[in-house]
Amino acid sequence: MTVTLLLEPLPADARLVDLASTFREVPADAPALRVGELSTQRGDGVFETISVTNGHAQESGPHLERLRNSAVICELPEPNLAQWRAAIDRAVELLPETGEFALKLVLSRGVEHGPAPTAWLHAAPAADFSRPREQGVSVVTLDRGYAHDAAAKAPWLLLGAKTLSYATNMAALREAHRRGADDTIFISSDGFVMEGPTSSVILRHGDVYSTPAPSGAILHGTTQMSLFEHLAETGRLTSYRDIRAAELGTADAIWLVSSVRLAVGVTELDGAAFPYDAETTRGFNAYLLEPRD
Amino acid sequence: MTVTLLLEPLPADARLVDLASTFREVPADAPALRVGELSTQRGDGVFETISVTNGHAQESGPHLERLRNSAVICELPEPNLAQWRAAIDRAVELLPETGEFALKLVLSRGVEHGPAPTAWLHAAPAADFSRPREQGVSVVTLDRGYAHDAAAKAPWLLLGAKTLSYATNMAALREAHRRGADDTIFISSDGFVMEGPTSSVILRHGDVYSTPAPSGAILHGTTQMSLFEHLAETGRLTSYRDIRAAELGTADAIWLVSSVRLAVGVTELDGAAFPYDAETTRGFNAYLLEPRD
Repeated sequence: MTVTLLLEPLPADARLVDLASTFREVPADAPALRVGELSTQRGDGVFETISVTNGHAQESGPHLERLRNSAVICELPEPNLAQWRAAIDRAVELLPETGEFALKLVLSRGVEHGPAPTAWLHAAPAADFSRPREQGVSVVTLDRGYAHDAAAKAPWLLLGAKTLSYATNMAALREAHRRGADDTIFISSDGFVMEGPTSSVILRHGDVYSTPAPSGAILHGTTQMSLFEHLAETGRLTSYRDIRAAELGTADAIWLVSSVRLAVGVTELDGAAFPYDAETTRGFNAYLLEPRD
Repeated sequence: MTVTLLLEPLPADARLVDLASTFREVPADAPALRVGELSTQRGDGVFETISVTNGHAQESGPHLERLRNSAVICELPEPNLAQWRAAIDRAVELLPETGEFALKLVLSRGVEHGPAPTAWLHAAPAADFSRPREQGVSVVTLDRGYAHDAAAKAPWLLLGAKTLSYATNMAALREAHRRGADDTIFISSDGFVMEGPTSSVILRHGDVYSTPAPSGAILHGTTQMSLFEHLAETGRLTSYRDIRAAELGTADAIWLVSSVRLAVGVTELDGAAFPYDAETTRGFNAYLLEPRD
């Protein structure tokens, strides 16, 4: 069960009553993109992955806001959020009413020398993440190569944008698997905790939950933000700050959080067993599986 | 006039007489790729751009060797070079006998969860580069964010592979244009000359031509190698070495060299006029436009 919608991207400020006329469904197996696509030639575009859980697109507002922010950083035409929202609604209508689906939004610079960006949504069943949600993941730390303040000094590195240029993220996951681990946490070249290749990192020391400050060198995680709101609402302390790599070792618990896999606890760090808080993790995922906006 | 060939990638060691049956021409304007393509979702694949000049594919051997090396670094299935060579030959047959064309080879990890990589060639007329070849380009230096030895310490950064994840390279070119320049030379975070976003850098101090040592943090340029062979054959001194950023300012001449634009001299560096050697540049391009293997 997959759904693919191709959009004719509207200007950001266009107001159109019949938004549904600006996108169309295509069969998933059919070719839909030209080889001249800059998304495929240059990884030149931005994306979001939204969880559709039991018929509800989770946190679509924050995801669309980040899509717009990524587009601005990459100097792509600003997306028309009403159009994207209508397309998300249509995709959700076409999906089953129960179950978890990963809905990817892609905004590409379009065909080389072409007149307009290319845009599409693609929904597919989410992988079964019940095991890592319940039993956690083993993690190794890997050097990200950049200093934690690189984004401020060199915005052309696009570190704060969720671009399609993810080859390094995928290679880091392969390196983690080679080392016998499930996932990885990137460390900046100057020794700060950054993020996972497809997740945000949350630590707990005592009663305080912390995550790396959004300096522009990492993505501001939608799931992390949602979880921090939930923690604050339930009286827990949260903190955005620069976190030294050594603080991973002193944490009482660590989680990787992302839109589709949700919250997974770290059970092993760089080859050593790590304290795993099953109960808190269960609470996180119960919250994350409820409809959220 | 464009040519697009889709390949069914063969295993590296497959021997097949009828290689032509493993690729087929598709219309350039027609969709040929599925949205599940990891090249487009993750910039997860490798590529080469070859110049086809007056009916000859330039340096196809070194380009194919680099394609293979990029595939190995990215843990993609090793390409069958005989198949790629046959497809290049076919594309050249389909192109006009005169003029310059850019022939792009792409090897993608394929459709997500799919059984096989995706591969294609796409040829299109080269842009008219006669003006920068004759009159040079203005260049600004930009921070690449990585230390010049990052590749050795963190191979998952894939720095020595020509991957499709080029969003940063494209953003750096936009930043150069914003600063009023035509192109950029990347400097490592520890102050060494690296490369351009789509070119290699060659400097001349006195009688010696030098280029950054291929440490794995930069691509080993096919055009740079070809030109160094030519320089050595004509009695000039060439050197691979670590080059400090300050040495750009003391050079007698600087060139950016690449497969399709060929050799362009630097006429302005970070806003200041720079000595331009029109005669040597002309000689470089005369050599580079001749058939080379």
